Amino acid sequence: MASQNLVGLEEDEVVSGAQLIAEALKTQNIEYMFGIVGVPVTEVAIAAQANGIKYIGMRNEQAASYAASAVGYLTARPGVCLVVSGPGLVNALAGMANANMNCWPLIVIGGSSARNQETMGAFQEFPQIEACRLYSKFSVRPSSLEAIPAVIEKAVRTSIYGRPGACYIDIPGDFVNLTVNKSSVKYVDCCPAPPISMAEEMTISKAVSFLLHSKKPLLIIGKGAAYSRAENSIRKLVDQCGLPFLPTPMGKGVVPDNHPYCVAAARSRALQYADVIVLLGARLNWILHYGLPPRFQPDVKVIQVDICAEELGNNVKPAAALLGDIKAVTEQLLDQLDKKLWKYPSDSDWWRGLRAKMQSNEAASKVLSLQKQLPMNYYTVFQHVRDLLPKDCILISEGANTMDIGRTMLPNYLPRHRLDAGTFGTMGVGLGFAIAAATVAKTHNPEKRVVCIEGDSAFGFSGMEVETICRHNLPIIIIIINNNGIYNGLDSKTWKDTLKLGEPSI
Amino acid sequence: MASQNLVGLEEDEVVSGAQLIAEALKTQNIEYMFGIVGVPVTEVAIAAQANGIKYIGMRNEQAASYAASAVGYLTARPGVCLVVSGPGLVNALAGMANANMNCWPLIVIGGSSARNQETMGAFQEFPQIEACRLYSKFSVRPSSLEAIPAVIEKAVRTSIYGRPGACYIDIPGDFVNLTVNKSSVKYVDCCPAPPISMAEEMTISKAVSFLLHSKKPLLIIGKGAAYSRAENSIRKLVDQCGLPFLPTPMGKGVVPDNHPYCVAAARSRALQYADVIVLLGARLNWILHYGLPPRFQPDVKVIQVDICAEELGNNVKPAAALLGDIKAVTEQLLDQLDKKLWKYPSDSDWWRGLRAKMQSNEAASKVLSLQKQLPMNYYTVFQHVRDLLPKDCILISEGANTMDIGRTMLPNYLPRHRLDAGTFGTMGVGLGFAIAAATVAKTHNPEKRVVCIEGDSAFGFSGMEVETICRHNLPIIIIIINNNGIYNGLDSKTWKDTLKLGEPSI
Amino acid sequence: MASQNLVGLEEDEVVSGAQLIAEALKTQNIEYMFGIVGVPVTEVAIAAQANGIKYIGMRNEQAASYAASAVGYLTARPGVCLVVSGPGLVNALAGMANANMNCWPLIVIGGSSARNQETMGAFQEFPQIEACRLYSKFSVRPSSLEAIPAVIEKAVRTSIYGRPGACYIDIPGDFVNLTVNKSSVKYVDCCPAPPISMAEEMTISKAVSFLLHSKKPLLIIGKGAAYSRAENSIRKLVDQCGLPFLPTPMGKGVVPDNHPYCVAAARSRALQYADVIVLLGARLNWILHYGLPPRFQPDVKVIQVDICAEELGNNVKPAAALLGDIKAVTEQLLDQLDKKLWKYPSDSDWWRGLRAKMQSNEAASKVLSLQKQLPMNYYTVFQHVRDLLPKDCILISEGANTMDIGRTMLPNYLPRHRLDAGTFGTMGVGLGFAIAAATVAKTHNPEKRVVCIEGDSAFGFSGMEVETICRHNLPIIIIIINNNGIYNGLDSKTWKDTLKLGEPSI
Amino acid sequence: MASQNLVGLEEDEVVSGAQLIAEALKTQNIEYMFGIVGVPVTEVAIAAQANGIKYIGMRNEQAASYAASAVGYLTARPGVCLVVSGPGLVNALAGMANANMNCWPLIVIGGSSARNQETMGAFQEFPQIEACRLYSKFSVRPSSLEAIPAVIEKAVRTSIYGRPGACYIDIPGDFVNLTVNKSSVKYVDCCPAPPISMAEEMTISKAVSFLLHSKKPLLIIGKGAAYSRAENSIRKLVDQCGLPFLPTPMGKGVVPDNHPYCVAAARSRALQYADVIVLLGARLNWILHYGLPPRFQPDVKVIQVDICAEELGNNVKPAAALLGDIKAVTEQLLDQLDKKLWKYPSDSDWWRGLRAKMQSNEAASKVLSLQKQLPMNYYTVFQHVRDLLPKDCILISEGANTMDIGRTMLPNYLPRHRLDAGTFGTMGVGLGFAIAAATVAKTHNPEKRVVCIEGDSAFGFSGMEVETICRHNLPIIIIIINNNGIYNGLDSKTWKDTLKLGEPSI
Repeated sequence: MASQNLVGLEEDEVVSGAQLIAEALKTQNIEYMFGIVGVPVTEVAIAAQANGIKYIGMRNEQAASYAASAVGYLTARPGVCLVVSGPGLVNALAGMANANMNCWPLIVIGGSSARNQETMGAFQEFPQIEACRLYSKFSVRPSSLEAIPAVIEKAVRTSIYGRPGACYIDIPGDFVNLTVNKSSVKYVDCCPAPPISMAEEMTISKAVSFLLHSKKPLLIIGKGAAYSRAENSIRKLVDQCGLPFLPTPMGKGVVPDNHPYCVAAARSRALQYADVIVLLGARLNWILHYGLPPRFQPDVKVIQVDICAEELGNNVKPAAALLGDIKAVTEQLLDQLDKKLWKYPSDSDWWRGLRAKMQSNEAASKVLSLQKQLPMNYYTVFQHVRDLLPKDCILISEGANTMDIGRTMLPNYLPRHRLDAGTFGTMGVGLGFAIAAATVAKTHNPEKRVVCIEGDSAFGFSGMEVETICRHNLPIIIIIINNNGIYNGLDSKTWKDTLKLGEPSI
Repeated sequence: MASQNLVGLEEDEVVSGAQLIAEALKTQNIEYMFGIVGVPVTEVAIAAQANGIKYIGMRNEQAASYAASAVGYLTARPGVCLVVSGPGLVNALAGMANANMNCWPLIVIGGSSARNQETMGAFQEFPQIEACRLYSKFSVRPSSLEAIPAVIEKAVRTSIYGRPGACYIDIPGDFVNLTVNKSSVKYVDCCPAPPISMAEEMTISKAVSFLLHSKKPLLIIGKGAAYSRAENSIRKLVDQCGLPFLPTPMGKGVVPDNHPYCVAAARSRALQYADVIVLLGARLNWILHYGLPPRFQPDVKVIQVDICAEELGNNVKPAAALLGDIKAVTEQLLDQLDKKLWKYPSDSDWWRGLRAKMQSNEAASKVLSLQKQLPMNYYTVFQHVRDLLPKDCILISEGANTMDIGRTMLPNYLPRHRLDAGTFGTMGVGLGFAIAAATVAKTHNPEKRVVCIEGDSAFGFSGMEVETICRHNLPIIIIIINNNGIYNGLDSKTWKDTLKLGEPSI
Repeated sequence: MASQNLVGLEEDEVVSGAQLIAEALKTQNIEYMFGIVGVPVTEVAIAAQANGIKYIGMRNEQAASYAASAVGYLTARPGVCLVVSGPGLVNALAGMANANMNCWPLIVIGGSSARNQETMGAFQEFPQIEACRLYSKFSVRPSSLEAIPAVIEKAVRTSIYGRPGACYIDIPGDFVNLTVNKSSVKYVDCCPAPPISMAEEMTISKAVSFLLHSKKPLLIIGKGAAYSRAENSIRKLVDQCGLPFLPTPMGKGVVPDNHPYCVAAARSRALQYADVIVLLGARLNWILHYGLPPRFQPDVKVIQVDICAEELGNNVKPAAALLGDIKAVTEQLLDQLDKKLWKYPSDSDWWRGLRAKMQSNEAASKVLSLQKQLPMNYYTVFQHVRDLLPKDCILISEGANTMDIGRTMLPNYLPRHRLDAGTFGTMGVGLGFAIAAATVAKTHNPEKRVVCIEGDSAFGFSGMEVETICRHNLPIIIIIINNNGIYNGLDSKTWKDTLKLGEPSI
Repeated sequence: MASQNLVGLEEDEVVSGAQLIAEALKTQNIEYMFGIVGVPVTEVAIAAQANGIKYIGMRNEQAASYAASAVGYLTARPGVCLVVSGPGLVNALAGMANANMNCWPLIVIGGSSARNQETMGAFQEFPQIEACRLYSKFSVRPSSLEAIPAVIEKAVRTSIYGRPGACYIDIPGDFVNLTVNKSSVKYVDCCPAPPISMAEEMTISKAVSFLLHSKKPLLIIGKGAAYSRAENSIRKLVDQCGLPFLPTPMGKGVVPDNHPYCVAAARSRALQYADVIVLLGARLNWILHYGLPPRFQPDVKVIQVDICAEELGNNVKPAAALLGDIKAVTEQLLDQLDKKLWKYPSDSDWWRGLRAKMQSNEAASKVLSLQKQLPMNYYTVFQHVRDLLPKDCILISEGANTMDIGRTMLPNYLPRHRLDAGTFGTMGVGLGFAIAAATVAKTHNPEKRVVCIEGDSAFGFSGMEVETICRHNLPIIIIIINNNGIYNGLDSKTWKDTLKLGEPSI
């Protein structure tokens, strides 16, 4: 009877909003939180830490939101960005936009004004849920403390199911320290990993048939392939079928850049003349020149594999539209190809032409990289950097020329080991991404190095986060390519010179 | 040379915005357009008719938008709602909202102010693209005449790919009569039918295993199943496995209501005691009491089949989450069940209990339907109506009691033959839906009857469309259940009486 | 002690959300409510009636929202439009848009889903506050029952202070029957009439000086002048200074149309040649051809009087920008003009030219109005109607030709006695406006007649509201000008004939 | 003939989008532009500089937007923030939000994707106009090059007319280098200074009467008073009537802080017991505790003076609502008070009580400021700083304790010489504001010093802008109060210690 009473007592135990948030995040397997505390969310960070979530205090919510979004890509479980009301939330829109465009999961939790001061001109009062609409898949305020676990589950689930993206959860300031009886709370389980969907077998057959009849096949590997952990299947597809492949910037490393079938060094030629393209988790957007002539053949047959139905057919009508998880569909393709025992001949004209182009391009880079004048050109710089980089390091890269030339000069050997300005071309993501990568590495793989190579302009967006790096003892190497990339205008020689020379000094 | 000249001439032929819109819609297999013309879209309607698209002029854009949305459900290709700027577009938001909530494809084309008067207080100037954001999957203005075909293709494609919904295309008034050389236009093909996706085999096996071990199985058939044309597969699943099934309101008819395994007459009991539920294209929202106790078992195992990943897990954690096209996944289930040769025993306690409940409920209805006082009660009314309805008619139903009681009293025998207030509970859809159904029937199946059964309040929303029906000679039968459903307030006896008696007169 | 207890009891008396809403509206001097009841707002209508607010049950929220907005214009205190969640609110956006564009005060109160079902797919769940943003000055949900009176005061105040417009108040369904202790409610007083602001004297002097030196002065009287109850002052200005004046459509009647200085019959000429224009509460938007050549002199000096600072300078740089209440500023002008004893000479060339043009235009109309063929032309129709109209009736007018020609043929003698499609050119407002006008007249001036003259197409938008008119015994005369204004398309002779002939039949 | 040709040539001269933007800004008297260039706006910055606009290249658009907004406050003409598409614009929302909340004018010009790539996944494609809606008074894209001057005029005008705020202008990337004939461009003049409005004399009399009968009067001076350049009038009001006054944080300096009637040192007491408050351009929001008990008397009579009608009556029903320009209304008050020859007696109980409280508060501060332990407390730090500050320097302040205690310890002697986190409580504004202030000073008053006193956390948001300061040789002194204000969480001693001690080190 006494124990029964105790049980009863326990059932009536109260719990605060901050605790509910922290426990619910933990239940949903959230490991990392980045943010800036202050009224009203300080207690949320404290509760998160008490529940075993790693909290990293940053210097600007902008960088915090970038960091949290990178965690989602690296671990397939969203990071959380915790921000205060008003300006804090507005600063975090940058990371939400970037995550949504990159199709990366992200949870932003924003404190907001106490409910009883709404419409009165409360401290940092702002229509935050509405403000996040354009930047998220789901933007919501739990209507009560009791609803917090279910709303957090729905946000986490929505962020990773279907095409991943950002979700926003609004927490009125008065929720944080308010308490309710635990018995009244609607607790929910951890949401399972995303459901896997596959393409129709008939369309798979059609795709295989196109491939078998292709003269100039090409595989394009996007960061969607990296996100779906399809590396083993795609590697097998490449090896078994002898297919030339081309990664998008963050698709690099799904199959190592030094794989003999990688035709990145002949990118333009490969795109321009391919007759059949297998597009694995990449979009035909600005990065791939919309899939249109003159950068592509007008009648190129695209076998488009994507998790998002609405993506299929964008800009180019696919010869075969394969809707489903990249990894699952790649395996479907492999299943049918296995039966055909087909391999694209390595002595074809297509291969010969690509190899010739690769050799000449690589030779040209080599020449540039051996130049010795000062200031050094990009190629020389990157040549030296490349020699020193550990093969398994995570590379972060941003800036205009720095990122573009770095993409060709700095190889990736492992999937999800390159983070850059991405689909949205966001400058300023570098340090946030580096902090995320180093934080994840610290927990799961302490030997891994994080190297951040940035243009000087790009570095300027979040340079203060160097302090965050130091404060948290994160082993990050930052290399800044100083090309005087800051515009000083008409009176300044530097700018014109820079435009003419385009040469960096390190 | 002469012929070359002619070819040259042809290439330089000009085309107007209105023509481009009409031709692009035709290319995308759009058959029906509903709307109200006026500045600046009259020419669009004329061009559409000239291109063989059936145009129905309605009395209020609200009803026009409902009509166009129903076409999308009935034909799986969106109808178009054509509206003028400003108020015309605002009136059409009703149908966009309803379509989006019902997951029905719809294209709304709205004229807008001439570009050179923007920001000046132009006639009916309004931020229309932005205004449609909350009501659509895609809201956009083509940036030029040249872009019209591609934008229309993208809108049509987006409306039917993935979870279907509404799309908005904004046409500046000056586009309509502006012309361009045909050679500069970016023409595109008809977008193919939506790509089909399937669930992982492993999860299918898991689902089948739950089913095989269930004591009290239940199939719930939603309008998503109807939309995916899954009727044959589901019918086979029901028959082969002997499963009790329950349709949602617009899921009625996927398997005929008079099928012996239909347990609609024991709906509450079936939901409340089922231990394994196969949810085919239905959402666990208000219509299904969120799938939660006390209306469901707390530990009910839900096998959730949906085309939308983000829907999976809403409110209830599914035992098996099957992401894919309803029809394709049903066939996957059948494939595995075929091998098991499993049939749920028809002499189980579960079946006995359900049958008993059905009999008692039906008997109660019978008693009510035989009452002879005046004004007649709903059951008596519907009993008479039922006897007269052709089995293959399309039934439209709205109103509160009229729709609810009608759902149980008026059987459906064919899929997509019932249209009602739907997921969004929209009153006023009836006549628009009826006009759509009759227009589609006229083209494809002239013998088919359309019967519209409405409460008097529901009828009031769009009653003027009776004129549209007459003007277009559409063979629609409208039955109004007059229960004095209009609130007159405290001084009115009628209201109180109605509340007490709830009896209709016809 | 017993009585003390009773007092104590009274102090602790509870009050429901519905009661709080009704009492707060009454406190804010709201007299009229239009809407459609249903879950969850029926109790709000009942409580409003119990508190002496007149409730009119309509057939479509669209028309209800038009009716409520007209009350705001007619009485300077907003009417309320009461709607259910989801589709009900979406239907009311039409009236909010129209009110906001017309700068008329309006309060829309929308029920919404119960809070504890939010994010779950509740009945008619929709982001309603956000949905109203584009259509309102203020869109908000009270955070608690306690906050209802203050939020309603702020909404009413915001709707009438500054430039009037629409405000939206969201009421979660569970608020309606929830109760709180009266002692915890934050009660507030009725907000006072809007504060009056005036222009700087120096700018008044400048304006007067322009007027004194003008050769071809013109006064334009907008509905802003009507709204600010400036009729006596403007009448005095016209009479005293002998100024030609021109009303905008709803500015008609501020000074009677039969006033000898009214130059409406020479509208185009007056606009085109005026050298100094005093613009009283009218915008230089599409209705006034943006104030630009060729419809205006390129160097016309505009003395712009407006309550909204941001309106000043739109499209034309004013010679004098007078920010303030139209009535107050008119009186400031009069004060300075009084001292000058200035009157514009009635024998000027400008007056002679205008009078000549008026006579020729009127003669042309006369000829048309005497034609006797059938179907009658518009002028003949309106001639007959005009002879029968009581001088003090409220005229409602909409339709294309019906409204345009009616504007010139049907005179107004009193301010705020004409209601039409307005700034937003909204078709379908007629019956809602008529119901509002008749309801207001019934209370305050039972002898007043309401006459509604509509094109047949315009009538179709809300024709069902004839039932509302009958149910409420509202003495409204509806005249429909049947010009076959419904587009039937290419196969229909009617349309082409109509386009050619443009002749109506009554 | 030759000259005719030349004239003809001149008339046909072409002009690019970038030039049109730059020239239009110059025409509108825009002096300063802050931003980050890149595709597609680099040419806009170049053209601006060529037209004599000072361009400051910053490190993050966030800080650039803060800088541009401060220019608007300091000069009453908006600064421009120039940003690239997508992320650049999103970063600038921070400054737009802050400007709008502070009621400061600001123009943001954002590049966006080329029109012919819209909907295709263009580089940094984003619905930018819509994204700025919540943060601006006016958000628009010119529909053509020809419309650029008129749109820029409207944006500048809207930003300064009525209650000032932010405006957004969207420039499609292809506009920048596109050209048109100058003759087709719609050129417009510079918009005049905002129109001045005044209150009704009757309400002025009412207000004066309240003041004359007050026992415990108080003047509150907000930043609205500073913005309206009302310092001379308010100083006269204070001196002539002997009124105790209290500045809000950015109202400091309108009347010097060392004026004998300044009761800032007895702020709480003054607010709590005043019976009549004249509120000059300050809002009764969180900064003033909503004007409600227990911080104010329940029956305090508020004479509210504001430029925004909708502000009047917020939270407290004013005894007199004076709508108009702060300066103009203050002069109206003075006019009537002049005639009364009224002065509030300096020997009243109210004055005695306030003076006593001020002395005791100042003494307490003095004690704290004389403490000598290390780390120094805030008061000691500020005491030293105060002694060194030039009286006419512009003070920038942010951080939590740093700003709060600094407000009481660091006096302002001139209006608009204090810039801080403001109404929206934005952290991170400091360096942007300092850059703006120093840039304005450099042009107009090169002797003036800018001193930036920041908490270490606040500094972190934009610390990288130190590089901008150096690059532009701006004479800014930055003092950072290091109180270890960065949260490191549970494992960190620092945080707990900080919480306990709250002592800074410099």
